[in-house]
Amino acid sequence: MDEFGIIARYFAPLATAPGSLALTDDAAVIPARPGCDLVVTMDQIAEETDFFKHDPPDAVARKALRVNLSDLAAKGATPEYYLLALSLRQGMTEDWLASFASGLRADQEAFGISLLGGDTSATEGPLAITVTAFGFVPEGGMVKRKGARPGDAVFVTGTIGDSAGGLAIFRRERHALAEEQRDYLVSRYREPLPPVLFGARHLRDFATASVDVSDGLIADLGHLAKASGVAIAIDAMAIPRSDALRAFWGEGAAAIVRAATAGDDYQIVFTADPACEGGILAAAADSRISVTRIGQVEPGAGVALVHQGRPLDVGRPGYRHF
Amino acid sequence: MDEFGIIARYFAPLATAPGSLALTDDAAVIPARPGCDLVVTMDQIAEETDFFKHDPPDAVARKALRVNLSDLAAKGATPEYYLLALSLRQGMTEDWLASFASGLRADQEAFGISLLGGDTSATEGPLAITVTAFGFVPEGGMVKRKGARPGDAVFVTGTIGDSAGGLAIFRRERHALAEEQRDYLVSRYREPLPPVLFGARHLRDFATASVDVSDGLIADLGHLAKASGVAIAIDAMAIPRSDALRAFWGEGAAAIVRAATAGDDYQIVFTADPACEGGILAAAADSRISVTRIGQVEPGAGVALVHQGRPLDVGRPGYRHF
Repeated sequence: MDEFGIIARYFAPLATAPGSLALTDDAAVIPARPGCDLVVTMDQIAEETDFFKHDPPDAVARKALRVNLSDLAAKGATPEYYLLALSLRQGMTEDWLASFASGLRADQEAFGISLLGGDTSATEGPLAITVTAFGFVPEGGMVKRKGARPGDAVFVTGTIGDSAGGLAIFRRERHALAEEQRDYLVSRYREPLPPVLFGARHLRDFATASVDVSDGLIADLGHLAKASGVAIAIDAMAIPRSDALRAFWGEGAAAIVRAATAGDDYQIVFTADPACEGGILAAAADSRISVTRIGQVEPGAGVALVHQGRPLDVGRPGYRHF
Repeated sequence: MDEFGIIARYFAPLATAPGSLALTDDAAVIPARPGCDLVVTMDQIAEETDFFKHDPPDAVARKALRVNLSDLAAKGATPEYYLLALSLRQGMTEDWLASFASGLRADQEAFGISLLGGDTSATEGPLAITVTAFGFVPEGGMVKRKGARPGDAVFVTGTIGDSAGGLAIFRRERHALAEEQRDYLVSRYREPLPPVLFGARHLRDFATASVDVSDGLIADLGHLAKASGVAIAIDAMAIPRSDALRAFWGEGAAAIVRAATAGDDYQIVFTADPACEGGILAAAADSRISVTRIGQVEPGAGVALVHQGRPLDVGRPGYRHF
C-alpha cells in the first residue's frame, strides 16, 4: 500500500472537519472565528526516545496526541484540530497502521478533536511522529507562564512521577510491586492523562500563570518562575505521588526529588490566589481530576524544594534531550 | 550546548511575532483576525531522502520552509508564520546550527514570515525537519484542487523538471553541461523557488482550481482533475523547461515525460478561464515569474499528456515515498 492508499484508508476517515477537505488538498483551512485566539503547539515523539518499538500502536498514537493536548490544556485552550506528520520506517504493517489509527480515533472522541491534515513519508531511522495541535481561547485569554505574583499559591493536577516510574520498570529497575501497581505505572508512561477538560473549562478562571509538566516539575516551575520574575517554594511532602510510586520508590527525600525532576508527567502546574482554593478544588472535582496545593510564590528568583524546613539539592531539575 | 541554549541562541531571535512569546512558553498564539481564514500545511524533509548530508545547512533550512510555502502559494494564501520541529542527530555542530538559522532568517526576510514556535529533540536516525506553515486568505477565499471546469485553460508557473535534473547530477548521471547550467539545476534541487508572491497577490483573482507541483506535474494534475471531476489534456511541447534541462536531457518525448513525472518542482499548476490569459501574464510579470499555458480542461476523467497529436504513456505519474 502506497502513501495515498494509507491516507485514504486510515487517515481520511479521521478528517471529519470541513476544513480538512478530507485530506484531498494541499492545505487545510481554519475558518475565521471572531472573538477567539488560536493557540498552537508542536511536539514530536520518536521510537526508543519517547516510546518503545513494541508499545501498542494505539498507545503510541495517544501519546503523540496527548503530549500536545497537555500544552493546550496548560494554556487554558479548548482543543479542536491537529496535523499529523508520520515518518514510517521499513516494515510497518497494515495491522500497525490500523491500530495506530484506532488510537487516534479513540482520542478524537475522548477530547472532541479531529485530524486536519499532515504528511506521511518514509524514514531510514526510527519511527517518528510530529503533531501540531490547535485550540481556541477567548481573545486575549491564553494563560501564560508569565503572570505569577508573590502571594499566589502553587497548585498541581494529578500525581507526579508515575511516568518515570513506568519507564524505570521498562528499564528493569528492581521492584516488588503488585501486578496492578506495575501496570498502573507502565500505563502512565505509555499513555499520559493530561487534564484537558480542566484546562479548557476551568483554568482561565483561576490561574495567574501555568505550565505543563513535561521536562520535570522543578524544571518547569523554573520556566514559570523565570517568565514571571518570581521565586517559588515547593513543600516536598505535599507533592502528590501515587500509592504505586510510593510503593516503588519509597517515602524519602530522594524519592521525592526523583519524581519531581523526571519529567513526562503531562500534568499542569499553575499559580492562583490562595483564596481561590475552594473553587479550584470544586472545579477539579467537576473535571474528575485531583488538584493539590504544593507551594507558594515569593519575591526573588528560582525554585526551592523544601523538605522538613530545609531546601533539598535537586541536582538536574529535569529531562534534557541533549 | 543543550536544547534550551540552542533555542535561546539560534531560534529565539527569529521569533519576532508577539504571539511567539519569544519561544518562552508552552504554546504560541495566533490572534483573531476577523474576515480572514487561516490556511495551514505541514511537510517534513529528511536527510538522504529530501536533501544530502553535506548540503549547505542554510539551503536545507530554506528547502524545509519552501516546500511548505509552496502549498500556501498554491492555495492563494499570504504566508505569515511557521512552527519548526527539528530532530538533530549526534554530532551537529554549532556552525551547522548557525548556518541553518541564517537560512531561516534569510527566508523570513524574503517572504515576510516569522518563527512562531516548535520543538527541538535528538534522534538516532537521519536529521529530520518538520514545518507547519500558516497563511491567511480572505474568508472563503482559499483556492482548492476542486473547481476546474471544462473549457478552462491550464497554466503552470516557472519551469518543470529542474529539481529532478539537479538530483540526477548528484546521482552522477552523465552530462556535458556547462558549469553554469550544472549549478543552476543543482540549486533548483537544493532551493526550490515557489511563486509565493504570485500566489498571495494574484492567484485568487484568476484560478478556478490549483495544486502545487510536488509529486510530479502529471500526478498533481491528476489530483486536481479527480477533485474537480474533469479530464485534463496537456500539450507536452508546451511544458516549460529550462535551457539547462533541455541541454541535459534533450528535446524528445522521453525527456518531457521524465520532467513531467519527477516531482520536487514546487511550482503552481492552476486552471482559469482562457479569457484571463492576458491578465495572468501581466500578473506573472508583476511577480517577476513566468506563467505558461500548457493545456485545457475537458469533460471526463484523467490526465493525458499529448505529443504530436497522440497521448504519451507516462508510466508512473509522480514520486511516491513508498
